[in-house]
Amino acid sequence: MLYTEIPTQRPVTPLLDAIDHPKQLRELEQSQLDQVADELRQFILYAAGQSGGHFGANLGVVELTVALHYCFNTPNDRLIWDVGHQAYPHKALTGRRDQLITIRAKDGLAAFPLREESEFDTFGVGHSSTAISAGLGMALARRYQNDPCDVVSIIGDGAMTAGMAFEAMNDAVAHNADLMVVLNDNDMSISCSTGGFAKHLAAIWERGESVNINDQGEVFVQPYPEWSYNSRLHSSATDAADNLFKAIGFDYFGPFDGHDVQGLVQVFAALKKRKGPRLVHIYTKKGKGFAPAESEQIKYHAISKLNTAAAATRAPKYSDVFGQWLCDEAAQDKRLLAITPAMSEGSGMVKFAQDYPERFFDVAIAEQHAVTLAAGMACEGLKPVVAIYSTFLQRGYDQLVHDVALQNLDVTFGIDRAGLVGEDGPTHAGAYDYAYMRTIPNLVLMAPKDENECRQMLHTAYLYKGPAAVRYPRGNGLGVDIQQNMVEIPIGQAEIVASFNEQYDDSISVLAFGSRVQAALEAAESFASKHEIAVRVVNMRFIKPLDTQILDQLAANTQLFITVEEHAVMAGAGSAVNEYLAQAQIVKPVLNLGLADRFMAQATHGQMLQQSGLDAQGIEKSINQAWNALEQSV
Amino acid sequence: MLYTEIPTQRPVTPLLDAIDHPKQLRELEQSQLDQVADELRQFILYAAGQSGGHFGANLGVVELTVALHYCFNTPNDRLIWDVGHQAYPHKALTGRRDQLITIRAKDGLAAFPLREESEFDTFGVGHSSTAISAGLGMALARRYQNDPCDVVSIIGDGAMTAGMAFEAMNDAVAHNADLMVVLNDNDMSISCSTGGFAKHLAAIWERGESVNINDQGEVFVQPYPEWSYNSRLHSSATDAADNLFKAIGFDYFGPFDGHDVQGLVQVFAALKKRKGPRLVHIYTKKGKGFAPAESEQIKYHAISKLNTAAAATRAPKYSDVFGQWLCDEAAQDKRLLAITPAMSEGSGMVKFAQDYPERFFDVAIAEQHAVTLAAGMACEGLKPVVAIYSTFLQRGYDQLVHDVALQNLDVTFGIDRAGLVGEDGPTHAGAYDYAYMRTIPNLVLMAPKDENECRQMLHTAYLYKGPAAVRYPRGNGLGVDIQQNMVEIPIGQAEIVASFNEQYDDSISVLAFGSRVQAALEAAESFASKHEIAVRVVNMRFIKPLDTQILDQLAANTQLFITVEEHAVMAGAGSAVNEYLAQAQIVKPVLNLGLADRFMAQATHGQMLQQSGLDAQGIEKSINQAWNALEQSV
Repeated sequence: MLYTEIPTQRPVTPLLDAIDHPKQLRELEQSQLDQVADELRQFILYAAGQSGGHFGANLGVVELTVALHYCFNTPNDRLIWDVGHQAYPHKALTGRRDQLITIRAKDGLAAFPLREESEFDTFGVGHSSTAISAGLGMALARRYQNDPCDVVSIIGDGAMTAGMAFEAMNDAVAHNADLMVVLNDNDMSISCSTGGFAKHLAAIWERGESVNINDQGEVFVQPYPEWSYNSRLHSSATDAADNLFKAIGFDYFGPFDGHDVQGLVQVFAALKKRKGPRLVHIYTKKGKGFAPAESEQIKYHAISKLNTAAAATRAPKYSDVFGQWLCDEAAQDKRLLAITPAMSEGSGMVKFAQDYPERFFDVAIAEQHAVTLAAGMACEGLKPVVAIYSTFLQRGYDQLVHDVALQNLDVTFGIDRAGLVGEDGPTHAGAYDYAYMRTIPNLVLMAPKDENECRQMLHTAYLYKGPAAVRYPRGNGLGVDIQQNMVEIPIGQAEIVASFNEQYDDSISVLAFGSRVQAALEAAESFASKHEIAVRVVNMRFIKPLDTQILDQLAANTQLFITVEEHAVMAGAGSAVNEYLAQAQIVKPVLNLGLADRFMAQATHGQMLQQSGLDAQGIEKSINQAWNALEQSV
Repeated sequence: MLYTEIPTQRPVTPLLDAIDHPKQLRELEQSQLDQVADELRQFILYAAGQSGGHFGANLGVVELTVALHYCFNTPNDRLIWDVGHQAYPHKALTGRRDQLITIRAKDGLAAFPLREESEFDTFGVGHSSTAISAGLGMALARRYQNDPCDVVSIIGDGAMTAGMAFEAMNDAVAHNADLMVVLNDNDMSISCSTGGFAKHLAAIWERGESVNINDQGEVFVQPYPEWSYNSRLHSSATDAADNLFKAIGFDYFGPFDGHDVQGLVQVFAALKKRKGPRLVHIYTKKGKGFAPAESEQIKYHAISKLNTAAAATRAPKYSDVFGQWLCDEAAQDKRLLAITPAMSEGSGMVKFAQDYPERFFDVAIAEQHAVTLAAGMACEGLKPVVAIYSTFLQRGYDQLVHDVALQNLDVTFGIDRAGLVGEDGPTHAGAYDYAYMRTIPNLVLMAPKDENECRQMLHTAYLYKGPAAVRYPRGNGLGVDIQQNMVEIPIGQAEIVASFNEQYDDSISVLAFGSRVQAALEAAESFASKHEIAVRVVNMRFIKPLDTQILDQLAANTQLFITVEEHAVMAGAGSAVNEYLAQAQIVKPVLNLGLADRFMAQATHGQMLQQSGLDAQGIEKSINQAWNALEQSV
């Protein structure tokens, strides 16, 4: 069935409703599976419509999910969903159907598979390309324990471009592990897939042959059947009559129609009896069965909740501020090249890619390569800009140290989604970047208080002749005016943004970083209105180099320093302040406010800030407590 | 020529002596290149014998290096040597012949290519598998600037297993970049190569065919000639008649004899005229031309200087302490599995691999995969131990956060080569692990004061039901007795190792971490002998969780805290102390001693510690200064 609207009423799904455990699915006749799949698709359409969240990928794996749980003895057999944004059907079939509308909300189901949520969620995911490694670990562990089971890692063609997946395949062959990899080929990561691997997959399809296996385990090659879609068959194929998976040592089967549940069941049943590393190549369509999503796959990668009043903010997203800056800077300087690891849309680079195609490099999901590619470009006198999420730069950390900073190369980093990220939960939080970046010599690291400062800081980072990074949060700016004319900020220079109650001697200095400047300002203003204490608020701007001059100046008449940041307290920006005060022998009380030493479950960004005491009220409360404690100790 | 001894006298090398720039090489007749190669091999044997350092890989690329500089217009054409431990012949041919005996010494040539050392060193390396990304960046940058040149990335078969290399190849095809990759296949990384990729290379050889190209750019296939060696032809080949490089979209040429300088010149000359991504597959032999190194390739990967009096220490290496612990723990607990990313020898795991082959997993150069493989194994109730160098764990940082710690999985990390590493220089320093690890929730992080504590800490980490790491330095222990019976250390418990001058009221607390405990103790003792001040020295043991109880206790009568660590001061263990003192409102002067915010050029480990003020004398000097400053401020 091809649906055209997201249902607002829960659809009627009698077969699905009777499945609270996959064993009930396995009791059905194989002939009933088409109806199960149809019901499941309708239900996913409904549930994702209510909850918002990932969408296209889930619709694409409905038949696959049904076939896997039908053929394998889950949870004893292990299914590992790479990235996991396609696990809604899996959650629905494994006892969590009625909770699915709570997905991504505070106290609801997690956005991704989560071990503590269900025994069917064998491995927590969120970042791409981990599933083969994790599945291999499980397969080897079970073999070692003489308790083998079937292990199936399901991974998209986009995720397969990350080197980690290649490392894992290489190793699976080394151990001749009993591991099945299902390559869910939809010709997309979140953006369109790119590179030699994508071309190779296209070439396989163009051969018009499918490697199949029958019940007796006999392998045969057949012309593949008529497809109802053939968008995969574009002309960019390589001419090599080769197969990468066979080359690396996997048994290869496919390609198969990933929406033919009967065919999938047949293949999985036959392959279950085989040993060793096996790859099953299937084609699915993102957004399958929902007409608008099939035709606009990138737009429907994820959706917002239905019927929620759109926030009335006119403030631009930080990603868009980055994107606009990128275009403006590029217009001024031909040396600018821009790199993204498959996050063109999320990073706000669509316009740049259109305007400057020859200067735009989507390197696929390949963070390690993205960073070193930039280093290579910088060696030739160009000025690459890498747009990357804070949590994904963790994948390119070694390259940042070893290839960029050690050589003091002129690379600019736009670090998006820094701090808490809300509904995506802990896998996507960017809570550690100050810590892992401020130890790196030669690096300049900034965080803006608002969207205008973000633009000016990006310009500043760009002009800086060495590695420099600007880290900014997910979501929208404050709604301030954005100054088109770009002005460099002096490196390492903070600014005092407010001074309250200057007439009093007792004094507090609030040192705020990035996204927490505004909340700190509100907290300080409120606190000052209730106390006869001078309060200064500093927008520190630079995590590295720290403005030590302003700290020296403030120290003379500060009784209490407060640092505020949307980052772990441990090793964070406040910690950098502590280090300087110690070094300068400024012995004063300091209160470091930031994120606690724990992973935070998903909620809205606002809820998470509140829980962390990092909204204005929370900050004011902490200032109060610290001041009272100080008063009492005197 | 096959040599059997390392010459102690500089060999006679008239052709080589006349080459101060590769253009002089290019002026020679092609027929003279065999002699150049022979002279260069003798010279490398001599020079590496004097300096110590990497050995086998350099002897293996003599002919390749000569052919490349002969065919390409260096430095305008770009050669990028992956890892770079094979760059001695390159350095010798590019104006640094007579300095080669200073390699790895303080103020001498760097162990690896270094941009600031020579214009021929196009990209600084040290960590593996970066050369294709960097080369691609250069090729794309030069194309964009309408100033194309030949770019050649030279990479070993071991390094090719790292996912980053695959990411870069994928991307090179996306851009149809004019990039040549020379795959230097010697069937080795530092250990033997492993996995599907190695099998694939074997399969290619077994076909007995070589894809060649003539001067007219015509490609043809020929039976490959008789090889003087055929160790490559082992029986582990896959049966796939496929070619991975062609599959990914590279033009493939080879395999060729990498010691036939004439043949290489012919191939490179022909391929220079071709465009697009090209891969040239050559076979070389590590240690080529030196009989002992040819037969014992792992042993001769690197050598010590000739004629240096062996250090009289009987103290074991920390790697060996780790290796012995691993065997002992494995004997007690069948759940223990051990993982190494191609560093079996360096990490002290040779005995374990022999004794427990079914529990030993060398995953090839694949740090990302290594960490997540362990996570998968832990999911099945086993207790994996990952042995990894501090600097290489940077490659698995995201996996440590996202796959291990977030799921609180029971994985133990033995982190070797932490702190300064001496002659290998800044690329291999492990100076940031406290910072990037202590922000991670759920993780326990320890550093031992000596080899016995290292063993007990590994045992403690192993018993801890969650992620735990022990980081220990390169080199030898202190020579203390090692207690065979393993005793768990209470998590988060420091120990006071000395108290001097307890009769005085004025008091300093020295909080020392890991490798710096002994030096701190010596410094404190010396300082105390000269001052009427009580000095306590604490072996902090745990970076996370910090022993906050002992800090509370000490605070009551401490005037000055000193923290000492072999790690960057920024965000390091001392910084953790600062954070706790601030949180507990203990307002006291603190002096944080550790590594400065700069990359340190190679020297001996002792020289580097001295430069950093982290030997006993340096620490005492700093204590003196801090105390005097404190006295004056009172």
